[in-house]
Amino acid sequence: MRVVVVGGTGTIGRAVVAELGRRHEVVRAARTGGEVQLDATDPASIRAGLAKIGRFDALVATMGEVAFAPLAKLDTEAFAVGWRSKLMGQIQLVLVGREFVAENGSFTLTSGILGRDPVIGGSAASLVNGALEAWVRAAAIELLPERLRINCVSPGLLEETALKAGAFFPGHVPVSAARVARAYAKSVEGAQTGQIYEVF
Amino acid sequence: MRVVVVGGTGTIGRAVVAELGRRHEVVRAARTGGEVQLDATDPASIRAGLAKIGRFDALVATMGEVAFAPLAKLDTEAFAVGWRSKLMGQIQLVLVGREFVAENGSFTLTSGILGRDPVIGGSAASLVNGALEAWVRAAAIELLPERLRINCVSPGLLEETALKAGAFFPGHVPVSAARVARAYAKSVEGAQTGQIYEVF
Repeated sequence: MRVVVVGGTGTIGRAVVAELGRRHEVVRAARTGGEVQLDATDPASIRAGLAKIGRFDALVATMGEVAFAPLAKLDTEAFAVGWRSKLMGQIQLVLVGREFVAENGSFTLTSGILGRDPVIGGSAASLVNGALEAWVRAAAIELLPERLRINCVSPGLLEETALKAGAFFPGHVPVSAARVARAYAKSVEGAQTGQIYEVF
Repeated sequence: MRVVVVGGTGTIGRAVVAELGRRHEVVRAARTGGEVQLDATDPASIRAGLAKIGRFDALVATMGEVAFAPLAKLDTEAFAVGWRSKLMGQIQLVLVGREFVAENGSFTLTSGILGRDPVIGGSAASLVNGALEAWVRAAAIELLPERLRINCVSPGLLEETALKAGAFFPGHVPVSAARVARAYAKSVEGAQTGQIYEVF
């Protein structure tokens, strides 16, 4: 298979590239670095980047920013960061990616544990994760007649970032990016659609 | 109790006003009609409207628009309708409402069945509903130290709109707005927080 990993230079992205690269041709796309540059917050940039890559069998998105702030400090702009980047960025990768994906292709997006299991200061991230998971369940039933699949991976706190971020996630049990990467392989190489693979 | 119902002139809002009005002082707020006018998409308008109302014990939001469109027709603007109105509108009612709510007060927002159980053309609505539910779970743990509660009601297809919209919801069993209104009473008069009350 030919697999595009958008955000292929990040912590999860690198693990996904390592996992899928054993068996497939992987193209890393990112704002900077990787084989192809694209900015997922800009549909025109997505289209230009995917046009360079050409036909692919699977697109994996492991990118997106969200703002962390206590409720009292949250303003429209703080929510807008996650909306533009992690939420609409990943959704636009699907909507534009439909033009380039091969038959029986798949999309795999990334949400996160905060959608289900919140922490203080993380409500804007929870919002984005809950939105992504609900959208993936909904998009799956519309992509089915196009012979396309879509799933979402919800990673827990990563071992690789737990030292830095762990204090904000009391009681969370970190998971390795390598273990999280298996869920992307399940989505790409498996046959399910509309699933949320929780790895936490 | 003094209860503000934002969207109190809509189908669910009227049922909530009828249910809570038996036991409480209810103030209806809406863009047009009601006792107080406010536009939930504009924080300044929310603040002005709530300042007219003054201290309240509970705020119920039963308002918000979302766009329905098949996946192929969804663009950023279609998603933005739900983001501005049903999602950020309700969230801003909480964030600004914190300035006016009485101690031990509560907020009750409205999501919908599509967050869990999607239909063709409803993915932007699913997104908003999933986002609201995840945000309410997250906001609850930050409002707890302020002695404030927040819950979300997820209504199914309404009997009152089933004739018009039912064809887009195959197999859905309509529920009456009066039955949905009970869930708002559970949130306002009960003691739970961070709950999603599904009425479908």
